Amino acid sequence: MEKGRILLAVTGFHPQRWRDLLSAEREVVLEPDGASDPSITYAVVWKQKPNILASLPNLRAIFSIGAGVDHIFADPGLPDVPIVKIVADNLTQYMTEYVVWRVLDHHRQGLLYRSQQPKKIWHEPQQRPATDISVGIMGLGNLGRAAASVLLSLGFAVNGWSRSERPMKGVATYSGEAGLIPFLKATDILVVLLPLTPDTHGIINYGVLKELRKRNGIGGSVLINAGRGRLQKDADIVRALDDGTLKEASLDVFEVEPLPKTSPLWGHPKVFVTPHAAATSDPVHLAPIMLRQMDAFERGEKLANLVDRKAGY
Amino acid sequence: MEKGRILLAVTGFHPQRWRDLLSAEREVVLEPDGASDPSITYAVVWKQKPNILASLPNLRAIFSIGAGVDHIFADPGLPDVPIVKIVADNLTQYMTEYVVWRVLDHHRQGLLYRSQQPKKIWHEPQQRPATDISVGIMGLGNLGRAAASVLLSLGFAVNGWSRSERPMKGVATYSGEAGLIPFLKATDILVVLLPLTPDTHGIINYGVLKELRKRNGIGGSVLINAGRGRLQKDADIVRALDDGTLKEASLDVFEVEPLPKTSPLWGHPKVFVTPHAAATSDPVHLAPIMLRQMDAFERGEKLANLVDRKAGY
Repeated sequence: MEKGRILLAVTGFHPQRWRDLLSAEREVVLEPDGASDPSITYAVVWKQKPNILASLPNLRAIFSIGAGVDHIFADPGLPDVPIVKIVADNLTQYMTEYVVWRVLDHHRQGLLYRSQQPKKIWHEPQQRPATDISVGIMGLGNLGRAAASVLLSLGFAVNGWSRSERPMKGVATYSGEAGLIPFLKATDILVVLLPLTPDTHGIINYGVLKELRKRNGIGGSVLINAGRGRLQKDADIVRALDDGTLKEASLDVFEVEPLPKTSPLWGHPKVFVTPHAAATSDPVHLAPIMLRQMDAFERGEKLANLVDRKAGY
Repeated sequence: MEKGRILLAVTGFHPQRWRDLLSAEREVVLEPDGASDPSITYAVVWKQKPNILASLPNLRAIFSIGAGVDHIFADPGLPDVPIVKIVADNLTQYMTEYVVWRVLDHHRQGLLYRSQQPKKIWHEPQQRPATDISVGIMGLGNLGRAAASVLLSLGFAVNGWSRSERPMKGVATYSGEAGLIPFLKATDILVVLLPLTPDTHGIINYGVLKELRKRNGIGGSVLINAGRGRLQKDADIVRALDDGTLKEASLDVFEVEPLPKTSPLWGHPKVFVTPHAAATSDPVHLAPIMLRQMDAFERGEKLANLVDRKAGY
C-alpha cells in the first residue's frame, strides 16, 4: 500500500512545525489547499474549517493533535471515518505536572504566602497534612489516572468520577449522574479533566460547586479546570468565589479563549489563570506517534485510541 | 523500670500543646523549672537554653522536636547522652509536598504567569518536559529520598549529593567534596535538604551557585532551600539572582529567622519566601512517636534514629 498523503488543517496553532515534521516522511497538503483532493488519505486537525474533510473522497482517518476531540465534532460535515485521539506520554506528563502543581499550590497556601511576602509578614498559618485533603478528579481516562497516581504518592485522599464506573486502586470512584453529588460531597479540591460532550457542557456550574465539601480547618473548596473551557460557566465560578462557596481556583481553560480582557477572572485575587497551557501538544513528540500509526494502519493493523462517536470522546 | 520524667525545653515554639500531649502519659517539667532535677530522664528540646541539660544528673536521652539537630549542638554544655532525631511520616510528607510544589512552580513558570495575569497577557512561553530538567538534591536522608521518589514519578531527572555515597535507584548520586562540582554541573534546579554542621555551614554560596548547569531553553538555574538557613549566604543568593547566575529561588530558611524586615529577599521579584514552614513539627503526630520510643527504651530496646555525634546529624 502506498504512503497516504496528509491534509494538515489546524486553526490556532502554527502549522509550520507540524508540516516540517510530518513531511519528512509523507506528502503534506496545507489547508485551505487540498479540498476535494482524491490523493489525501489522512487529516491531521485542530478546529478544522467546516466541510473541508467532507470534500475528501478517499479520507480514511482523522488525527487530533490535542487530547480533546470536541473541536472535531463542531464540523457539521464531519465524515464517518475513524477519529484517532492522541495518547502520548509527553501530554500525560505535562498534564500530571499541571494538576499536581496546582493542587499543591492551593493545598500549601501559595496565594496566602504570596500576599504576605510584599508586606514582610513572617506568619505560618495552620497547615493540614495531605492525608486530610480529598482531591476529586472528574474524568478518569489516561490523564486523570496518571495525575491520581502521583497525588496518591503525595498522601492525598483521591476520589474519581466518570461517566461509567472506572475502578482504580487507592481511589474512591463514583460514576454517572447518581454518583455526582456523593463524589462532590467527599471532595475538597475538584480537578476537572472531563472531555467536552453534550452531556458535560456547562457541568461545572454554581449548583455543582455548591455541593463541594465544606470543612473547618481546610479553608474552603478549590476548583482546578484543565479540561475544556465550555465544561464550566465562567460567571458561576466568579459568583462562587465571591460568596465564599469556593476559596480559590486555578483555570487553564475558559468559555471563550483567549480569555477576553473584559473577563473578571483576569483580575480576580483568588484565581490563577494560565493560557490553555496545562498540556500543550508538542509536534516534536506527537508527529512521530501519528506517523507510526499511519505506517501500522497501512500494514493492515488496527488504529489505536479511536474516538467512540456515540460517547463523543 | 519506672516511667522517666520529661524536661520540655523548647524555644520559639509554644510549649503548651507539647506539654499537654506528653503529659497524658508521663510527668512533664517545663523549662526553666527542672534544672538539676534528679528525677528527669528525658529532655524534649528545640534550641534549649545553654547548660540546662548538663545540670540533669540522670538524663538518659535527648529528643529533638524538629528534623534538624544543629540547634542542640549549639549548647556548650551538651551532655554525652544519646540524641534522638525525629523521623516521622508526617514530617517527611510535608517536606516532600514543599519540595515538589516549589520544583513544579519554577519548572512550570509560575512566576512568569503570575506576572502576566494582572496585565491580562494570554501568552504561553516554551515549556520543556520534566524529562529535560535535572533536579539535584543535596542531602539524601529520609527527606531527600522521599522527595526524589515523587520527582522521579513526575519524570524529572534526579541527581543526589551527600557526604558519603548513598545509592538510590533512578538517581545519579555524587558524594563528598570531589563529587560536588560534577553534581552541580549536572543540575538545573538545586534543592537543599542538608543538615547544618561545621562542614555544611555556608555551603550555598556564590561560588557553588555559579557551578549550576547553564543551558539554553531552560531559562537559568533555580535554588530551593528547605534545609537550614545557615547553609546559605543570603547576600550571595541576592547577588546570584541579580547577575543572572540564578533565575529564581524559593527560600524557606534564612541566615537569621524571622527574616529581618531589612532583608532584600523579602521584596526580591525572583524570590518566593516562606517562614520556615516547609515541614513543621506537629506535636499531635510527633509526641506519640517520642512516647513510644521512651516506652521501648524502658523495656530495654535500643533507641532508633540516633544522631551520629561525629557527623553532627
